[in-house]
Amino acid sequence: MKYFSKNNIDELNHLYKINLVNSCSGYKSANLIGTQDNLGKTNVAIFSSVIHMGSNPPIFGVLFRPTSVPRNTYENIKETGLYTINHIHEGIILEAHHTSAKYSKDQSEFDVTTLKKEYKNEFNAPFVKGSPLQMGLKFIEEYEIKANGTILLVGEIQHLYINNELLLDDGFVDLSKGKTVAINGLDGYVIPTLKMRLDYQRPKKI
Amino acid sequence: MKYFSKNNIDELNHLYKINLVNSCSGYKSANLIGTQDNLGKTNVAIFSSVIHMGSNPPIFGVLFRPTSVPRNTYENIKETGLYTINHIHEGIILEAHHTSAKYSKDQSEFDVTTLKKEYKNEFNAPFVKGSPLQMGLKFIEEYEIKANGTILLVGEIQHLYINNELLLDDGFVDLSKGKTVAINGLDGYVIPTLKMRLDYQRPKKI
Repeated sequence: MKYFSKNNIDELNHLYKINLVNSCSGYKSANLIGTQDNLGKTNVAIFSSVIHMGSNPPIFGVLFRPTSVPRNTYENIKETGLYTINHIHEGIILEAHHTSAKYSKDQSEFDVTTLKKEYKNEFNAPFVKGSPLQMGLKFIEEYEIKANGTILLVGEIQHLYINNELLLDDGFVDLSKGKTVAINGLDGYVIPTLKMRLDYQRPKKI
Repeated sequence: MKYFSKNNIDELNHLYKINLVNSCSGYKSANLIGTQDNLGKTNVAIFSSVIHMGSNPPIFGVLFRPTSVPRNTYENIKETGLYTINHIHEGIILEAHHTSAKYSKDQSEFDVTTLKKEYKNEFNAPFVKGSPLQMGLKFIEEYEIKANGTILLVGEIQHLYINNELLLDDGFVDLSKGKTVAINGLDGYVIPTLKMRLDYQRPKKI
């Protein structure tokens, strides 16, 4: 096996290092976060850092890089308290990836890509039309991570929409039926197929 | 599309709710965390909550459920400051899933499964032998999430091992070459194939 010590990693060049370390957690979720400011100016951006944090209440986290550079998504959430999380599917990978380009706050990614916004249930943030699973969330709290200045932003589901064919009788959402994407490292995309579901496990009698 | 309001979700029965909400973030990473206490008693357990938090320094988070119930992994990390994160691959899915059974602290999952431990580089926590990517980490800090009492534990890579065939020239780790697994919801497993890597994006000239 190839070995890297902590010092080896620290001394790698920037691009090699971010390619390497971004892959080390395993696969990451692939979502578009939709926001708008108080004037209604919209933004949509790709995130691989959306995580499930609990089901009761139904809360999710998003990790933001340090705010020393402009972060339109983060600023809009802090301004309005609302945002949407939309699963990226096979049909919009290229457009979703393009939202990682650094556009100014005046330029909505909905205008420079083929991604379409939609509004539902009087929720004041744009959903991404056609996404197989869409959530409208309310900001709850945030934590600044001392080790590197990133911010973990926590929000709660207010509205949840799922394509009917993905939802099974026991509540399980078969992501592969929506051709939902996962991310490998910084820039790798996969479209998994469900292999198996396994039973609840109890200790073996020994 | 099927619609759930926040109130609809709150009123779902427990199992339906956790199946549903656990799927809503998209795919999750699949890792085994190896630990031991100060007496050398080992533990290995499956986690779908390992996340990349930054590359410089190379840090990762793990989300733990409230500590009102015994959490051997969490307690061992707090006791020794050390743990390993090991990617789950196709060949060990069943055994990895079984580590979710609630064994007492006296019973090592290395003894009741076919998972094998290995020690390297004088690091005092067990790696999972045969895992295509193994990391030895040092505890850095933790955050208690007010909304639900979960704990985000942050650690830094000290040692990193990767099967040679996964590591590309630019530092990208092709997880699919290791048949690395991802998790859908609570109990669904997928083994993705790399579809594409996309270029760094710059704004379009408009």
